Amino acid sequence: MGIIVLGTVALDSVKTPYGVRKHMLGGSAVHFAMAARLFSEVNLVAVVGSNFPRKHIDFLRKKGINLSALTQVPGKTFQWEGQYQGDLNTASTLHTELGVLIQFKPKLTPAQTGIKHVFLANVDPDIQQGLLSQMRSPRLVALDSMNYWIAQKRRALLRILKKVDIYVANDQEARSLAGEYNLIKAARSLYSLGPRIILIKKGEHGALFYSDKFIFLLPAYPIDKVIDPTGAGDTFAGGFMGYLAKAGRLNAATLKMAVAYGTIAASFNVEDFGSRRTARLTMGDLEKRLIKFKKFLLF
Amino acid sequence: MGIIVLGTVALDSVKTPYGVRKHMLGGSAVHFAMAARLFSEVNLVAVVGSNFPRKHIDFLRKKGINLSALTQVPGKTFQWEGQYQGDLNTASTLHTELGVLIQFKPKLTPAQTGIKHVFLANVDPDIQQGLLSQMRSPRLVALDSMNYWIAQKRRALLRILKKVDIYVANDQEARSLAGEYNLIKAARSLYSLGPRIILIKKGEHGALFYSDKFIFLLPAYPIDKVIDPTGAGDTFAGGFMGYLAKAGRLNAATLKMAVAYGTIAASFNVEDFGSRRTARLTMGDLEKRLIKFKKFLLF
Repeated sequence: MGIIVLGTVALDSVKTPYGVRKHMLGGSAVHFAMAARLFSEVNLVAVVGSNFPRKHIDFLRKKGINLSALTQVPGKTFQWEGQYQGDLNTASTLHTELGVLIQFKPKLTPAQTGIKHVFLANVDPDIQQGLLSQMRSPRLVALDSMNYWIAQKRRALLRILKKVDIYVANDQEARSLAGEYNLIKAARSLYSLGPRIILIKKGEHGALFYSDKFIFLLPAYPIDKVIDPTGAGDTFAGGFMGYLAKAGRLNAATLKMAVAYGTIAASFNVEDFGSRRTARLTMGDLEKRLIKFKKFLLF
Repeated sequence: MGIIVLGTVALDSVKTPYGVRKHMLGGSAVHFAMAARLFSEVNLVAVVGSNFPRKHIDFLRKKGINLSALTQVPGKTFQWEGQYQGDLNTASTLHTELGVLIQFKPKLTPAQTGIKHVFLANVDPDIQQGLLSQMRSPRLVALDSMNYWIAQKRRALLRILKKVDIYVANDQEARSLAGEYNLIKAARSLYSLGPRIILIKKGEHGALFYSDKFIFLLPAYPIDKVIDPTGAGDTFAGGFMGYLAKAGRLNAATLKMAVAYGTIAASFNVEDFGSRRTARLTMGDLEKRLIKFKKFLLF
């Protein structure tokens, strides 16, 4: 059936204790796609500028990503520059250049408007709304947001939250939007804003799934060499949504497996810079690590 | 068979978003005992001063704690005063008064020196060594320490670590002693110091069990009203060691169950001030919550 991902395609520069990389292919939509592509056709909805390297387009196409809704316009591609220190849990943003992202208006092909699974990665809530209003009959819509929009466009964010099924947030964002420190209370409060599922990503501490039907907890898969965590959250979302799109059902067992696949996908993402590791990820890699992961948890 | 716990019996004053309590019965040995008593006879090794209220002694005795090695000497009982803010994950110590703890020399009865399970809670490594040297043939010795000793008595701590089976630490302490941010690497490094098992407590994020044979991960049991986390780590250790003492075996299945019981015991501890909740904890409470917990984790 396919998945829509609305988000950024970026040129990322990053500094971690393991080194420096400049202008790598990055962005939420790319990281999401690298995991979701293993389960379903990914339709990437994003904008790049005239300086976007041709090789990245070729790369995405070779990975089977549908680029019909990737537009290239005059101007500069979105750039992010950040660094990680210490436990690599939090990025410090050194520089952001929005470039062509500022006047981005997503535009789907007629065929794409019929897709059932939609992931609205972290962009301006108005852009997320612009995409969502093009969907004819979405079955499952998930949305990610971040502190900037929680602070600057709270109203627009609250409006669109009423229309989505799943709110995906990291723990800090969940606390901030809910105004609650305790994560269970925060999840309950976010649930009251509309989404029937709240999925809180806790980085190296795993994920918390909250719905009115059940709670599900999963630690992160332990990785002893975290090289670059950029995009781990979007990779998690890609594995999660990808699995759900493929499964086609939405019961407790499927949802839990989706969280597990998201967790495993994210664990590969952090093992190398950018999407270097996930670019060559196979379903076999996922399955193998999932079996190991289950052993770490069973008692 | 029984368990030895060496640690503090304290008068704790605490301020959390839920209120203020003064001079409650606290201390590592007490919190440990409140969980471990459900599995095995707990022999408490600690010192209190002349100002220690008689009612607390009566209370501990009523809970079945063996107080033969609890000594009362002239001077002031150890006092700790702290406060929690925000997410209640970290305590700020406002005041500590060591009192009689300064010249504490643990002394076991002849019968106690034959006990097989020993928990050395966080006190001066020399005091921990003083207790350990009295044990005739301990089968399982676990040790907790904290940043103060890691910084001030590193050598003595490293010496005793060679003699213990299990090192229990919170994530910050584990990182500090190992000099490693990544927790898996930190655990591996701590393992090389002697203990064959490293048990890292991550507060609201659960626990990581590391041995040369296997790794085991467990999130914390989700609690939506954390009133006072003081003693959660020692309660965790009490459930963990208590279960192992009762089981008598030390295979993977027993060790994992022990981590689960520790996790559940700790979840009760944080639900009220001091040891108010764990003081009336029953095995039935533990079992019931453990069944719920398993449901949160299974996929």
